[in-house]
Amino acid sequence: MDAFKTLREQAYEANMEIQRRSLAIYTWGNSSAFDPDRGIFAIKPSGVEYGALTPYSMVLLDLDGNIAGGKLKPSSDTKTHLVLYRNFPGVCGITHTHSPCAVAWAQANKPVPVFGTTHADHCAREIPCTDYMSPEAVKNNYELETGNLIVDTFKKNNLAPAHINMVLVAGHGPFTWGKSAALSVYNSVILEEICKMALFTAALDPLAKPLPEHITKKHWERKHGPDAYYGQR
Amino acid sequence: MDAFKTLREQAYEANMEIQRRSLAIYTWGNSSAFDPDRGIFAIKPSGVEYGALTPYSMVLLDLDGNIAGGKLKPSSDTKTHLVLYRNFPGVCGITHTHSPCAVAWAQANKPVPVFGTTHADHCAREIPCTDYMSPEAVKNNYELETGNLIVDTFKKNNLAPAHINMVLVAGHGPFTWGKSAALSVYNSVILEEICKMALFTAALDPLAKPLPEHITKKHWERKHGPDAYYGQR
Amino acid sequence: MDAFKTLREQAYEANMEIQRRSLAIYTWGNSSAFDPDRGIFAIKPSGVEYGALTPYSMVLLDLDGNIAGGKLKPSSDTKTHLVLYRNFPGVCGITHTHSPCAVAWAQANKPVPVFGTTHADHCAREIPCTDYMSPEAVKNNYELETGNLIVDTFKKNNLAPAHINMVLVAGHGPFTWGKSAALSVYNSVILEEICKMALFTAALDPLAKPLPEHITKKHWERKHGPDAYYGQR
Amino acid sequence: MDAFKTLREQAYEANMEIQRRSLAIYTWGNSSAFDPDRGIFAIKPSGVEYGALTPYSMVLLDLDGNIAGGKLKPSSDTKTHLVLYRNFPGVCGITHTHSPCAVAWAQANKPVPVFGTTHADHCAREIPCTDYMSPEAVKNNYELETGNLIVDTFKKNNLAPAHINMVLVAGHGPFTWGKSAALSVYNSVILEEICKMALFTAALDPLAKPLPEHITKKHWERKHGPDAYYGQR
Repeated sequence: MDAFKTLREQAYEANMEIQRRSLAIYTWGNSSAFDPDRGIFAIKPSGVEYGALTPYSMVLLDLDGNIAGGKLKPSSDTKTHLVLYRNFPGVCGITHTHSPCAVAWAQANKPVPVFGTTHADHCAREIPCTDYMSPEAVKNNYELETGNLIVDTFKKNNLAPAHINMVLVAGHGPFTWGKSAALSVYNSVILEEICKMALFTAALDPLAKPLPEHITKKHWERKHGPDAYYGQR
Repeated sequence: MDAFKTLREQAYEANMEIQRRSLAIYTWGNSSAFDPDRGIFAIKPSGVEYGALTPYSMVLLDLDGNIAGGKLKPSSDTKTHLVLYRNFPGVCGITHTHSPCAVAWAQANKPVPVFGTTHADHCAREIPCTDYMSPEAVKNNYELETGNLIVDTFKKNNLAPAHINMVLVAGHGPFTWGKSAALSVYNSVILEEICKMALFTAALDPLAKPLPEHITKKHWERKHGPDAYYGQR
Repeated sequence: MDAFKTLREQAYEANMEIQRRSLAIYTWGNSSAFDPDRGIFAIKPSGVEYGALTPYSMVLLDLDGNIAGGKLKPSSDTKTHLVLYRNFPGVCGITHTHSPCAVAWAQANKPVPVFGTTHADHCAREIPCTDYMSPEAVKNNYELETGNLIVDTFKKNNLAPAHINMVLVAGHGPFTWGKSAALSVYNSVILEEICKMALFTAALDPLAKPLPEHITKKHWERKHGPDAYYGQR
Repeated sequence: MDAFKTLREQAYEANMEIQRRSLAIYTWGNSSAFDPDRGIFAIKPSGVEYGALTPYSMVLLDLDGNIAGGKLKPSSDTKTHLVLYRNFPGVCGITHTHSPCAVAWAQANKPVPVFGTTHADHCAREIPCTDYMSPEAVKNNYELETGNLIVDTFKKNNLAPAHINMVLVAGHGPFTWGKSAALSVYNSVILEEICKMALFTAALDPLAKPLPEHITKKHWERKHGPDAYYGQR
């Protein structure tokens, strides 16, 4: 199983970052790392506390959901990860947390408006929030349908998962993704910070207006556009 | 007194966890551990700071309230614990804290709605809040009547203490329980997290709606139902 | 100056506790310790950061405001302490902080209602808030008049400083006191916790009602009444 | 390049204080230190995490924006710093953060009222908030125009940057300055504390009134007026 040493370690590190950044307590939350060449991802085992994890407790699966390595049961949210890997090309890491401010927006069933440049630096549109899942979908295959709900929300609203790497599942909480497991949990940290600032903003003014579009565009493009000039590139 | 070494240690560890998890300051809050075979429980002494506790400062009592060991006075809330042990079969640990978000809901005299899956993963109904205690009950035997108030709230609303292991006493704060002292304080941590998320949700939308019943049921059952599949079992 | 070693150390320890408990940043806040037999109190020097304090940086003064020891200038709030020592018999320690939730209530110019037992365990009435100081009093002798404002608020409302050991100065922040410097800062910690819980309660329900009087009385009396039974006495 | 060792170290220390005081996560925020005699300032490199900084990663620039030392690209906000150094005489340090409460007020597009003495001790007027930048200015030279927006806000409202050493850029966040880099980040810490207290105050009373002018003036003058008596001077 040494062949997947790096993948296990990537998943392990991302999961430990969930705890270090206080994005979830106890066993809540999970990260996975995907190797697109081999079609395998490593994910947190179900219901195990972060302090008890090692790279070797990570579970390996293929995109059909078959176990490819590891002795433990994978996260109960495994099928959600699987659907996202199948449908969002280029995504090699996914993180799900129960960070309190992101959960609050999800529980209020509201997308997060672009109130400021902190948000626009990262995402040029509001953070989408799915609808509640239908009773039929819940009965069918809840975790797989959670993935479908996210994918459908992006299709319906014509959103690009490469540019909007985060979503709130209504009444549940945040899922984030990226080109690596490390980037997916990095995005979870940023999402929580954006949601906290947005919560405080709404507390100061329940009718607060979003940032004017021309400023949003500028901040997004200076970090992510073709002529981006933020950072050391 | 070595016969109760384990029980004392269980109570001690749960009390220390109250402090580690910031669920109370100074001497506030208390945990107890119950041994149903011997009919004895160990509880925090009254008004002693957490830093000064050892397993041997725990006080042992039977369910009639007779001291069975220990040199200190037991917690002023001892009779509340006693009533719950008598009336909630299977409960072997109880924790009372003054964690700020749970206290806020208790002070607002409101049950906590099931706003999301974080709550539903743990409890499929709203967190109940008792009525204020009557002047007669207060005069009679305050701490014992606090236990009665909780028991009556559960009876009146047909709630199962095995499934809903937490309550808010109106104007006071939370009591939680479980199959062990460790699980009772674990439930106190989760209750505070649920109450924090619910507080933020209500701040975002004072008219926020509860999670649809079919999602609540699903989350509860995947963790606690007959076909539960969360965790390593 | 060894004669005041204990007094200096008491004041020093209380000041350090302000920082340890995050009740103020930088140089904000101050504690003093009073020896009624000698009529001398020790207080934090003005504008010195907590990390730079030692017991020997404390300044000694008599109740006429004459320096009785120490090389530094005393806290700018010294005269407020002095007025309280003169008028509140039995008080041997005073603490002033800028803890954020207590400041918020002071800035909103509102007394803190007795929303729950956490408050009632400590104080059976609302936490009083003074009026704003008049322009004349400000011009006259601001810090001395701050003391007078507190004393007048207690007189006007017939409040006993032995039972209500805390006050909010309108638009400013909290002052607390006790039988020792250590107890005065202990009361500052409790006041901040009460104010945080009350802030959250008001967020959940702006019209939240105070705890019924009979419960307030019971909680106060079980801790502070003639038949108090809380703690190890 | 040893000639600028002190300047680099000052900038480095101020940037590290941003992280230590939790004023920004990851690479967000930046401090600079200016030497007016030589017309050179040292600033954080763009997009580098705080943990990876050393004094030698600081970038040196003159007030025309020419690189005068260092191997990395300077902060994307460099031109904002440059405009402020050019226009605010006596300023030798500038800090920009994304601290959450200051950002919330900026996102709500509201100046921060002088609700209390904590604010008045530091600044005798409300913390100004700029207008949103116009589309033309954004297109022209965004970061330079951010500096112009701040300078114009101060001119238009007749504000003295020596007395009001902080501003909120609408929809963006705080900039603070001072006679040194260390003082500029000190002012960022105080601004966040003021904004947190003001947020809590507005939560308690959305119509909360500012502190009466005579108290504001007194607090400002006892710390900063010609007869100031706060501190050890």
